[in-house]
Amino acid sequence: MPDLRKDPIVGRWVIVAKSRAKRPHDFDSSPRLRTGRFCPFCEGHEDKTPGEIIAYRNPGSHRNREGWRVRVVPNKFPALEIEGDLNKRGEGIYDMMRGVGAHEVIIETPKHLFSTSQLSEEQLREVLWVYRDRLVDLKKDRRLVYGMIFKNVGAAAGASLEHTHSQLIVTPIVPINVWEEMTGSLEFYNYRGRCVYCDMIQQELATEKRIVVDSPGFVAFCPFASRFPFETWILPKVHSSHYENIQKNAVDELSGVMKQVIAKIEAALDQPAYNYIIHTAPFDTQELGHYHWHIEIMPSLTKAAGFEWGTGFYINPVTPEEAAAFLREVEIYELHEPQDIPTRGTG
Amino acid sequence: MPDLRKDPIVGRWVIVAKSRAKRPHDFDSSPRLRTGRFCPFCEGHEDKTPGEIIAYRNPGSHRNREGWRVRVVPNKFPALEIEGDLNKRGEGIYDMMRGVGAHEVIIETPKHLFSTSQLSEEQLREVLWVYRDRLVDLKKDRRLVYGMIFKNVGAAAGASLEHTHSQLIVTPIVPINVWEEMTGSLEFYNYRGRCVYCDMIQQELATEKRIVVDSPGFVAFCPFASRFPFETWILPKVHSSHYENIQKNAVDELSGVMKQVIAKIEAALDQPAYNYIIHTAPFDTQELGHYHWHIEIMPSLTKAAGFEWGTGFYINPVTPEEAAAFLREVEIYELHEPQDIPTRGTG
Repeated sequence: MPDLRKDPIVGRWVIVAKSRAKRPHDFDSSPRLRTGRFCPFCEGHEDKTPGEIIAYRNPGSHRNREGWRVRVVPNKFPALEIEGDLNKRGEGIYDMMRGVGAHEVIIETPKHLFSTSQLSEEQLREVLWVYRDRLVDLKKDRRLVYGMIFKNVGAAAGASLEHTHSQLIVTPIVPINVWEEMTGSLEFYNYRGRCVYCDMIQQELATEKRIVVDSPGFVAFCPFASRFPFETWILPKVHSSHYENIQKNAVDELSGVMKQVIAKIEAALDQPAYNYIIHTAPFDTQELGHYHWHIEIMPSLTKAAGFEWGTGFYINPVTPEEAAAFLREVEIYELHEPQDIPTRGTG
Repeated sequence: MPDLRKDPIVGRWVIVAKSRAKRPHDFDSSPRLRTGRFCPFCEGHEDKTPGEIIAYRNPGSHRNREGWRVRVVPNKFPALEIEGDLNKRGEGIYDMMRGVGAHEVIIETPKHLFSTSQLSEEQLREVLWVYRDRLVDLKKDRRLVYGMIFKNVGAAAGASLEHTHSQLIVTPIVPINVWEEMTGSLEFYNYRGRCVYCDMIQQELATEKRIVVDSPGFVAFCPFASRFPFETWILPKVHSSHYENIQKNAVDELSGVMKQVIAKIEAALDQPAYNYIIHTAPFDTQELGHYHWHIEIMPSLTKAAGFEWGTGFYINPVTPEEAAAFLREVEIYELHEPQDIPTRGTG
């Protein structure tokens, strides 16, 4: 069972796991994407993953067999484990608890596709809906307070399997960056009585220069203080703090916006590695006036060096205005079937 | 001139520079170390760098010529520029200022060596002393409030030149991670009346299980909530908030400890890429009871994926107790001359 340990200075929680009999020099500093090998996520290989937690299935198909459209399974190498109590405790000045939590994999399609942009809008809707379903289910567990949904595409973004999938980690603590967003946005709210994200949306829509996609219910823009080149955020225009409260018609619209934004990033940057993360409020809060759920998409173009790691102080060589202008204008190509897909460099 | 832009939610400052006519697909997601080519940092190539700011030189040698032992030059591709005023301003809800600051390179030896561990203790003393000299000089500039000294070794840690060097970035704002350390340690101080770092040192020395090196004036340990495998911190045992107040005899001792710690990390992990960063208090503060300068050394073994980026929530697959035990026991080999040095993998 891994530990959750808290840094006594800044309050950052870290998952510390005992290494699996690894010698120090077994670490590989440049992990590779496993390509061209047997894929455990493809339809027909259901017995190669842990048993499914939930799947959206075609009528007449059976659990852990073919016939699914979206499938959620436990991560085979989980960062946290679901059984047991937290055993919160101190060790001198240090705080720790057992690494209780959930770590799940959302397999987004039975086909061997590589990216969100290759999913049909209908397929992506089901992915976005199953995110909601899992959050709704897991927030019933009183030990757990935060659900983080994220996706890694490409080796440079930390992916080890190319079949398009996302992950869900549910933790008994609030991760520090989310905590900072919560406290920063609360400070703004207390001072001005408004949601800082709503203010950003309003200003971005008015100036237009950082807008990438504008739909009736959602807006995608490159944020004013982008950490990474072509970093793009997607926010619902109507204030809402919890992703899991999303409605079906909003998911329908969001899937179109996401597909378009990611296709634009891929066309502009020639299929880069990327991450996206859904930022949402903690489970143990009601609807919050100051916090606004959103999706952050971060292409992996620059390598974070010592300076960024140590300081949280980023150097971004592309202005968000340049990036947004490019993304607005870039032509996207439509891809649906695997045979149409150009080979991805595995960097 | 780059901008400094502040994220309105969490207060993170980002350096945003206009790209130098780059097309988006010019980004290379896997930068390589330039090896085996002409090295602008080697003795005799002084005209291939901008003119020196300071150098420790042998008697009779001349500025920007051979005969130096340590040499500091402006970065040829600076993240910030030293001329002009800050022009602090708002743009709606956003805050920004001009990217005024210093970006310097400390060339640590005239020889083509690859790592701190290959420097003699005497050489490393001069490197540590020139860090101090530059901070003392730059803090006279009232526009600037923070000096960050860091080092990248190996491509995976963000280095693009292999000749051993460190960097200094001096900014008109306090970087967010340092700000978090300052406020977190102040909170601890206000509550308990003690420095949290002093408490950590005391507990680490008492339990011994995370200690790597213990010298009369310094201690090196793997922190309780290590983000990275084999992360190691070096702290002075006597409380001090500002690195630039270090005394000559402390530098002498520190150089021995640093050389030993880095040599141990390199022996244990087979010459990994790594970063180190000196965490010190802002220029515009007097000696602080709550803050304690220290050096953080972070081998680049794991790749930060979406989860870490988005949350500041790290998964560390090696406990600091395992790492420290290994580092305590590993045998280090002494290397002095380039011809003795095994070839470094540049992957």
